[in-house]
Amino acid sequence: MSEWELLSRIAAEVPRAGDDCALIPFQGTNLLLTIDVLHRSADFPAGTDPYTMGWRAVAVTLSDIAAMGGKPLAVVLALSAPDLEEPFEGILHGAGDCAQAAGCELVGGDLDISEELFLISSGLGEAERPVPRSGARPGDRLYLTGPLGRTYLALLFFSRGKATAANELFRFTPRLREGQLLAGIATSMIDLSDSLAHSLHILSRASGTGFRVEAERIPLLQGIPREELEHVLYFGEDYELLFTAPPEALPPGPWVEIGEATPEPGIRLSHGGRLKAIADRGWEHGASQASPNRHLSERRRKP
Amino acid sequence: MSEWELLSRIAAEVPRAGDDCALIPFQGTNLLLTIDVLHRSADFPAGTDPYTMGWRAVAVTLSDIAAMGGKPLAVVLALSAPDLEEPFEGILHGAGDCAQAAGCELVGGDLDISEELFLISSGLGEAERPVPRSGARPGDRLYLTGPLGRTYLALLFFSRGKATAANELFRFTPRLREGQLLAGIATSMIDLSDSLAHSLHILSRASGTGFRVEAERIPLLQGIPREELEHVLYFGEDYELLFTAPPEALPPGPWVEIGEATPEPGIRLSHGGRLKAIADRGWEHGASQASPNRHLSERRRKP
Repeated sequence: MSEWELLSRIAAEVPRAGDDCALIPFQGTNLLLTIDVLHRSADFPAGTDPYTMGWRAVAVTLSDIAAMGGKPLAVVLALSAPDLEEPFEGILHGAGDCAQAAGCELVGGDLDISEELFLISSGLGEAERPVPRSGARPGDRLYLTGPLGRTYLALLFFSRGKATAANELFRFTPRLREGQLLAGIATSMIDLSDSLAHSLHILSRASGTGFRVEAERIPLLQGIPREELEHVLYFGEDYELLFTAPPEALPPGPWVEIGEATPEPGIRLSHGGRLKAIADRGWEHGASQASPNRHLSERRRKP
Repeated sequence: MSEWELLSRIAAEVPRAGDDCALIPFQGTNLLLTIDVLHRSADFPAGTDPYTMGWRAVAVTLSDIAAMGGKPLAVVLALSAPDLEEPFEGILHGAGDCAQAAGCELVGGDLDISEELFLISSGLGEAERPVPRSGARPGDRLYLTGPLGRTYLALLFFSRGKATAANELFRFTPRLREGQLLAGIATSMIDLSDSLAHSLHILSRASGTGFRVEAERIPLLQGIPREELEHVLYFGEDYELLFTAPPEALPPGPWVEIGEATPEPGIRLSHGGRLKAIADRGWEHGASQASPNRHLSERRRKP
């Protein structure tokens, strides 16, 4: 069974899956619920410290809430590890600090024993005006909240033994403030847990538009040469927000315009005057990146 | 580090842990959030079918919501398995059916690749009058919502190749209706994910009371001889609710009175006219039972 077949079968069983968080209408507003699995072999290279593991486990879930324009209410964290000597305290400390920095709280969890270390976080949020993946319209401009390459560079640092710098990059700040500023303004939004390339295809399928991206405008983290743009494009785990909006509606903020939504389908990269199709890569299981996580999460329930 | 040391350190990092679900005050009511990890080596004996795995993964989380007197709003399920040929569809089908039977919906999840099969569910609920673990008072009577021995018997069936009967027992119905009937009436409550013995100790520590339990009154599932009472007492995963209430306040229901709360500490079993202390066992990691899950989730935030 291909991953596509699998995902379409999942869609049949979980028809409400399709956005970064599940949306639950509640008392005149919407609750957001999301869950994310991280585990040692896929997500924590040698050198990742426990505090960073806990921080990152919470941050990936808060990033999903950010991608819907939501406000986080609480996070729970489940830990499973080979023995009780695992550095649970450091993990919980990092998880708690990340939640607190985002204005919410680590409120509980579950503890278990397994051969491989697993950290699973579930986040609860609220969004009065949730931003779906499906609302991009031709003519909308395409934006990022910041430069790409965070995890790409972190893994390079880990592989070279620069653990301090690598851990710092791994402890990213979820773009909650930016997401909330964009609620009611962005027409579609997603967080870059998968690659920019794959995320563009997701927005494209959900919205029924294509995208034209200007290669020169894609911001890269300091330390990444422009020649590596294509690697970064397909790499993933940048954890910036990718969104569309009509330019006149955008409030001041750290937005970087990188292209626009087009009526014709397909994702095209404009580079030195030439147009090139961007393939739907950067999300396969087993790809050589830190986390090939796949999100089932969710199609927005139509009001 | 002993498990007690670990749990007390966790309490320092997650001060709001302490009940079956975390409690989040929201718009004049309370939201409940819980997370549960199940994985193959600990929770799914050979013969467990995918539909049952999915059902059970959702049921254990809904059981935590039941234990607070809550109403379920939504469930998300994360799956991680060695390859895409794993029977995801059956798992999702079972998970969806369990949610639907409880009046809520499976709304999303996450998908990942790992050596061992993991199913992690997170449940969202609401409780206007949440029942904590800490409210038992001396003189309150002690009740169960049904007989013990469900998982004890299921594992026996699995080991004897009676997979159909074993899977049926594994697909338990979370006691949501009962839990909601008890909201505002039960003074303390917990679900029997751990053993009756350990659960009594948890209520005792949280409430500051002891318990006296009448051995003859403890109901056992049909097919379990009375001589096996002590095994069952320390076994766990019965997924009935254990609660205290003043007897005059109790509405009609499937309650079985098994003892009472006492001012003096300690758990005592009355058996044939003799009193015997019940040890705090039936929850250790690595114990010979299906799931040695430990719940961080916990202490109710005082209003």
